[in-house]
Amino acid sequence: MNSNTLARLVITCADRPGIVAAVTSFLFAHDANITELDQHSSDAGGGRFFMRIEFQTERLDVAPEILEREFGAVVGLRFAMDWHLHFAARRLRMAVLVSRHDHAALELLWRWQRGELPVDIPCVISNHPDLQAAVGAFGIPFVHVPFSAETQAAAEQDILQRVADVDFIVLARYMRVLSAGFVAAFPNRIINIHHSFLPAFAGGDPYGQAQTRGVKIIGATAHYVTAELDHGPIIEQDVVRVTHRHELDDLKGLGRDLERQVLARAVRWHVEDRVLVDGNKTVVFA
Amino acid sequence: MNSNTLARLVITCADRPGIVAAVTSFLFAHDANITELDQHSSDAGGGRFFMRIEFQTERLDVAPEILEREFGAVVGLRFAMDWHLHFAARRLRMAVLVSRHDHAALELLWRWQRGELPVDIPCVISNHPDLQAAVGAFGIPFVHVPFSAETQAAAEQDILQRVADVDFIVLARYMRVLSAGFVAAFPNRIINIHHSFLPAFAGGDPYGQAQTRGVKIIGATAHYVTAELDHGPIIEQDVVRVTHRHELDDLKGLGRDLERQVLARAVRWHVEDRVLVDGNKTVVFA
Amino acid sequence: MNSNTLARLVITCADRPGIVAAVTSFLFAHDANITELDQHSSDAGGGRFFMRIEFQTERLDVAPEILEREFGAVVGLRFAMDWHLHFAARRLRMAVLVSRHDHAALELLWRWQRGELPVDIPCVISNHPDLQAAVGAFGIPFVHVPFSAETQAAAEQDILQRVADVDFIVLARYMRVLSAGFVAAFPNRIINIHHSFLPAFAGGDPYGQAQTRGVKIIGATAHYVTAELDHGPIIEQDVVRVTHRHELDDLKGLGRDLERQVLARAVRWHVEDRVLVDGNKTVVFA
Amino acid sequence: MNSNTLARLVITCADRPGIVAAVTSFLFAHDANITELDQHSSDAGGGRFFMRIEFQTERLDVAPEILEREFGAVVGLRFAMDWHLHFAARRLRMAVLVSRHDHAALELLWRWQRGELPVDIPCVISNHPDLQAAVGAFGIPFVHVPFSAETQAAAEQDILQRVADVDFIVLARYMRVLSAGFVAAFPNRIINIHHSFLPAFAGGDPYGQAQTRGVKIIGATAHYVTAELDHGPIIEQDVVRVTHRHELDDLKGLGRDLERQVLARAVRWHVEDRVLVDGNKTVVFA
Repeated sequence: MNSNTLARLVITCADRPGIVAAVTSFLFAHDANITELDQHSSDAGGGRFFMRIEFQTERLDVAPEILEREFGAVVGLRFAMDWHLHFAARRLRMAVLVSRHDHAALELLWRWQRGELPVDIPCVISNHPDLQAAVGAFGIPFVHVPFSAETQAAAEQDILQRVADVDFIVLARYMRVLSAGFVAAFPNRIINIHHSFLPAFAGGDPYGQAQTRGVKIIGATAHYVTAELDHGPIIEQDVVRVTHRHELDDLKGLGRDLERQVLARAVRWHVEDRVLVDGNKTVVFA
Repeated sequence: MNSNTLARLVITCADRPGIVAAVTSFLFAHDANITELDQHSSDAGGGRFFMRIEFQTERLDVAPEILEREFGAVVGLRFAMDWHLHFAARRLRMAVLVSRHDHAALELLWRWQRGELPVDIPCVISNHPDLQAAVGAFGIPFVHVPFSAETQAAAEQDILQRVADVDFIVLARYMRVLSAGFVAAFPNRIINIHHSFLPAFAGGDPYGQAQTRGVKIIGATAHYVTAELDHGPIIEQDVVRVTHRHELDDLKGLGRDLERQVLARAVRWHVEDRVLVDGNKTVVFA
Repeated sequence: MNSNTLARLVITCADRPGIVAAVTSFLFAHDANITELDQHSSDAGGGRFFMRIEFQTERLDVAPEILEREFGAVVGLRFAMDWHLHFAARRLRMAVLVSRHDHAALELLWRWQRGELPVDIPCVISNHPDLQAAVGAFGIPFVHVPFSAETQAAAEQDILQRVADVDFIVLARYMRVLSAGFVAAFPNRIINIHHSFLPAFAGGDPYGQAQTRGVKIIGATAHYVTAELDHGPIIEQDVVRVTHRHELDDLKGLGRDLERQVLARAVRWHVEDRVLVDGNKTVVFA
Repeated sequence: MNSNTLARLVITCADRPGIVAAVTSFLFAHDANITELDQHSSDAGGGRFFMRIEFQTERLDVAPEILEREFGAVVGLRFAMDWHLHFAARRLRMAVLVSRHDHAALELLWRWQRGELPVDIPCVISNHPDLQAAVGAFGIPFVHVPFSAETQAAAEQDILQRVADVDFIVLARYMRVLSAGFVAAFPNRIINIHHSFLPAFAGGDPYGQAQTRGVKIIGATAHYVTAELDHGPIIEQDVVRVTHRHELDDLKGLGRDLERQVLARAVRWHVEDRVLVDGNKTVVFA
């Protein structure tokens, strides 16, 4: 598929008959060529409606911005939709927040460098200076913003200014808890990687908790950040088997591999508009 | 979702703009309530179009058979579609062919008995008498049709008569190779379970082959049967890890569990109209 | 390997140098032929020692019971071992407790009937009469022991008498909570299957909890029962992916398949002396 | 566990009674402290014997080289063992050969840089100059050795000289086929990553082959290199699910992640002396 002429339309609204017909008839009337369509209704009667459409724009009869305006005026309004249209030629802007553990952040930068992650990364921000060189090697600005209980308000203000124009933020093992105010500025636009299979082992030291409990499988969870710690909508999870032979360092090592993979998938899906939020859950059209 | 009023429309055709709009507008015009829609195009330009729609029929403005006839006349013809409409209230009829290994067949019967597999099973046919009692315990007629190189033609005739009115056939470890003529009578309607991760270890004794090669993972494959042995469109595969400690009997034991799961999933997806054939491949909307 | 002449020696004790040499020299001196040995120390200094040995008894220079007595007197005493020697020719006796959900219990009976589970099953006990016929079809006595808050003491007494001579008990979706006194009579000899990925979703309605939280993976856990509900040593866990499309009934269906597999593995490992308890965790030599 | 005082003894020989006792008694007599022991016999009578022992050397009564010489003279000779003793303080030397695809090589370098892979890497050799900068960033010498059908003999000579003192070689997507003579210089000491689930899709373009066949799962295989292409002893394999929606580039992307993980595991196991070769198969004590 040609990604320069690719567009994605994502819709959430109250379910009622006729939405698919209205949306696809609109697109057809404007010569959009649908190549992938996923639709889900949470309940046959009175539930929520979710849809994601990929289409090619080569033969559009109007300019993209006209299509967008028309859609809102004609279809979006009629069904009181929460919708957005993303022309893939416009790359999303992603900020990365990280502390000392580098694996999750570097995995993203690595994929970005390889062209696997079509975003722009204006900056990587950390509450520690440790990763300055590693991030710099990718040609990405690294910003050290100290963050303690005392400085939290100022630190968050600093960060908010620096990320004012990004589309979303990734917490790639950022070990500080952001305030409800900060989170509210990026609703469902902050992705965190938690190093456990949530809801098991929320909070601190999940690998230690897992070892103490003697589980046979450990996991990692990528989720949107909400005001309540580790309770936001889950985007993706994955697991790996462990045995009695794995010491704490082994769990952390296996966990790092999981975290990298799970976070990378979640970020890619977010970038590709595959993640729709449904209350405290997600619909992922992957 | 209410399965009594559930219908599924499955479509394959040459791709061109406007198909989704035409189909969903047709359904909306007749008050069908779409609850799930999957669409896939194999190529942005000039490929194949695949779609599966689930809808509720409670408020249909016409009788089901009218809807079906109309759809064919109005939409199906226009886009030269290969399509079918399945009202779930009509249960599919499934015949099971089995030899001596009982696990795959019994798993299906067990799920059927529990109500997990909404089909009718007019008969289980075997080239050995061994499973007479086990099948009889489910209240399903068991038919012994001996099948050797010499009797193949007559045996296949016998079987064809007995399955004349079934919708599809499951080869649940049926160890005879059916003739091209037999297979042609049920195109993409015979499901086989092969005890390897195809295309590895096609043919006989796959577990022995796997042990000799020293693979670290074994698998099972459910596929539609075509004239070429073990080469039909793959519906589902799954795998399990093995180690040097597993002897041949262990591989067979692990494999039995896999075969049961993989075949059960493939049959369920077939029954739910989730499997669309694309040349020698499948599109599975699972 | 010949299972009639197979024996297994399982040892737990405080770790110190020389244990492996002492044990294997003892076995060699009596012409036992070791075919598989697993050893694990929980810590290089001052930890716990775990070992499982499989050996063939064909050329033993003494009778099995002499070997057993000698081992205890000579080696077991010296290292203050917690040990047992299991000659596989003696089949373990397993009781099954079940409520209304039949899948976990029937999976065990089915494997037993096929010869995959080398145990004797003196009885299946249920607090409901529903499974009388299904269990009876396997030729195994079914006992209905009603169990309510009021009758718990008498019911447990009744059950204890019926299982007085069994080696272990399996709770195959037995929905009653056994008293601490009952559990104490079978320390690390009661296996439960919990229908979640513990410690997530302990307690009631785990599938409902999983759906509410919006997890992307669900699990099942087999564990030894202790006085604290759902907190005993975990033997085995497994998971399966789920999506937004799975309704509660789908989760239960997928979960049933998981429960069957996880419980069957845990029971087999227990029967084969592969599970050693280490505080509230297990060492599984699988 | 303290890795500075860690040693590993790996043994393969014809099976006969008394080996475990002889080996562990020898180690005990010299105050070696066994912390992990795995043993496997390929057959109860007349098979091959495999054993891996981890022990701590802190209290050894003799110098490591004395222990090693003694073991060979006393135990190794007696049982005609193929054995080696690896004191972990001595880091293995690993050479990496790579072509243009960088993901597999960089994954190893990245883990090495993080301290996850305790080896020394004297050089990375490539038949293309492309990865000069990427490898140089890790402070590892990069050598460009052109390799064509005409120059193969000279190229292999060049490479052999450069790797004369390494313990093993990793082919991290090295797209040239090495001669039987080259391979013979490093028996079971060249690890290759093949981008398919062998034996399926051996040879060229495995992702293209996988897509054509329509498999539902793709894989990667790490194996020792032998004279016969893609037929050497398999060390590790892993798989990932794919669907009809994955185009060739998607398969390659998913495959890259698999290759990185599978190769990293295989190399780590090799470094930790966990891989024992048994004819054309491996015994992996992982």
